[in-house]
Amino acid sequence: MRALVWDGDKLALSSSHRVPTADDRTAVVRVHLAGICSTDLQIFKGYMGFRGVPGHEFVGSVSEGPEAFRGKRVVGEINFGCGRCENCTRGLGRHCPNRSVMGILSADGAFAECVGLPAANLHLVPDKVSDEEAVFTEPLAAAFEILEQVQIDPGDQVLVLGDGKLGNLCAQVLRLTGANVTALGKHEDKLKLIKRAGVRTILLNDWKPRLFDVVVEATGSASGLELALGAVRPRGTLVLKSTIAGNHDVSLAAIVINEITVIGSRCGVFAPALGALEEKSVFVTPLIEKVYPLTDGIEAVKRAARQGARKILLRP
Amino acid sequence: MRALVWDGDKLALSSSHRVPTADDRTAVVRVHLAGICSTDLQIFKGYMGFRGVPGHEFVGSVSEGPEAFRGKRVVGEINFGCGRCENCTRGLGRHCPNRSVMGILSADGAFAECVGLPAANLHLVPDKVSDEEAVFTEPLAAAFEILEQVQIDPGDQVLVLGDGKLGNLCAQVLRLTGANVTALGKHEDKLKLIKRAGVRTILLNDWKPRLFDVVVEATGSASGLELALGAVRPRGTLVLKSTIAGNHDVSLAAIVINEITVIGSRCGVFAPALGALEEKSVFVTPLIEKVYPLTDGIEAVKRAARQGARKILLRP
Repeated sequence: MRALVWDGDKLALSSSHRVPTADDRTAVVRVHLAGICSTDLQIFKGYMGFRGVPGHEFVGSVSEGPEAFRGKRVVGEINFGCGRCENCTRGLGRHCPNRSVMGILSADGAFAECVGLPAANLHLVPDKVSDEEAVFTEPLAAAFEILEQVQIDPGDQVLVLGDGKLGNLCAQVLRLTGANVTALGKHEDKLKLIKRAGVRTILLNDWKPRLFDVVVEATGSASGLELALGAVRPRGTLVLKSTIAGNHDVSLAAIVINEITVIGSRCGVFAPALGALEEKSVFVTPLIEKVYPLTDGIEAVKRAARQGARKILLRP
Repeated sequence: MRALVWDGDKLALSSSHRVPTADDRTAVVRVHLAGICSTDLQIFKGYMGFRGVPGHEFVGSVSEGPEAFRGKRVVGEINFGCGRCENCTRGLGRHCPNRSVMGILSADGAFAECVGLPAANLHLVPDKVSDEEAVFTEPLAAAFEILEQVQIDPGDQVLVLGDGKLGNLCAQVLRLTGANVTALGKHEDKLKLIKRAGVRTILLNDWKPRLFDVVVEATGSASGLELALGAVRPRGTLVLKSTIAGNHDVSLAAIVINEITVIGSRCGVFAPALGALEEKSVFVTPLIEKVYPLTDGIEAVKRAARQGARKILLRP
């Protein structure tokens, strides 16, 4: 089959990549759309030492595998746990120490005609949710993960740092709680997209420091942390969403002095994200910049890497 | 009166420092004993830009002030809030943005014959608690603060990093929860002190990395953070007790990837600490290295600054 393959040095289009195989527990999904994520771009800089087919945001239909799913439109959770360890039995397979992760760690991903994954990871896509919406399930679930970890109440003052795709989704999800959400970013056009979802926005140049109950760091850059720490009230909460390769050089004294709670937040479960897409309580399609055929994948990745790019999708 | 005075450059014994004055809300306490803390040593390196009489660990008797306290033996909470702001009205005067802090920020401390403080900050010392025990109330309260912030259950695996005074007190307090507490440190003699309190101990040289539900970083050094982050299980908790002057140069990716909760923890309320001292459920006097007269305060501070020193006390 056709697939984009990363060999640790360069990304290339292969027309003869091995087709995944199905069994009782493994499904093969024909990919309809796949999204290029910042993590993919980090992989092309060496993140995780990954080799193989990247891509972990996808929607498709099951071509082979357990009967319950065959022919159905699905999205899939990306962490493949062992199913037996303490984390897996607690429902935290995404923290399984022996996990593989689709397109990120020891498992081929979705920048291909087909992708294989455990049927247990599949979720049916409701009819009302288009492919263009469903392909955002994975990043939207990562935004919903915040609500699983932090109690946010109506009226709470919440700041989202970063106006990129993740910041946008986080701001929209946090708004669902009834909290007063403010998004802070560098790009007027991107802030406008967030504002359309009913979130207050501030351009970084106009920022006057003040304190929030909860701050979400979703800038994807190391420099966001210091600003974020300075914007959390004493005993408030800072949610870290950005995975930064390399070290931070930062004073952490504010964490102790102000007794701040810092919570790392990564992948989420899919159900609330699919629910929000079905109810149209979150808007994702305005984030799409362009859809490329898989055969133009190299060019698509270049476009995704451009400063300020919105979501780039691949259609095999 | 006699007092040790820090002028921003050197510490000197003054025999004519102004005596604090009392009023309806302010008590003057004749100091029986005062403890030298690592924060004091940081102040002598410029921390907080403090000028005046240092010292925030003390026990004494009230010589002037509100009648209810006069002549009584007391300890005192060290944060003097405004009493009117949002934090103060929520009982978090120790996070009041306009606070002064005894011997640390805009208020004279206890390395003196007398110290003045709001009567609201005073706690009576139970008869069963000696001066030598009561002088540990403040650092012991800082250890109890962890229990106010983090739910720790019997059987939880807890690691305390650091075998100094704070690490010792944290380990003892955590043991009260019924958790399985392990202390990790560099000094055999100090680990022995912790072991006497029923805590498992490991010498750093013998450390084999494994994962804990809760890790408490109490090394007082920047290097502890990386080891601490590596010892927290996915979705576990890291409590930061060390205030480090300057920056950390550290990778924080593990916080996000493993969805770790990092909680900064500083001063605590005094009641549980006094209760534990009265019940003798925590042992503090083995931590005392030497008691100096206040007039030998300069020498006492030098001794407290020696690598591996235990608690040095001053008796005015």
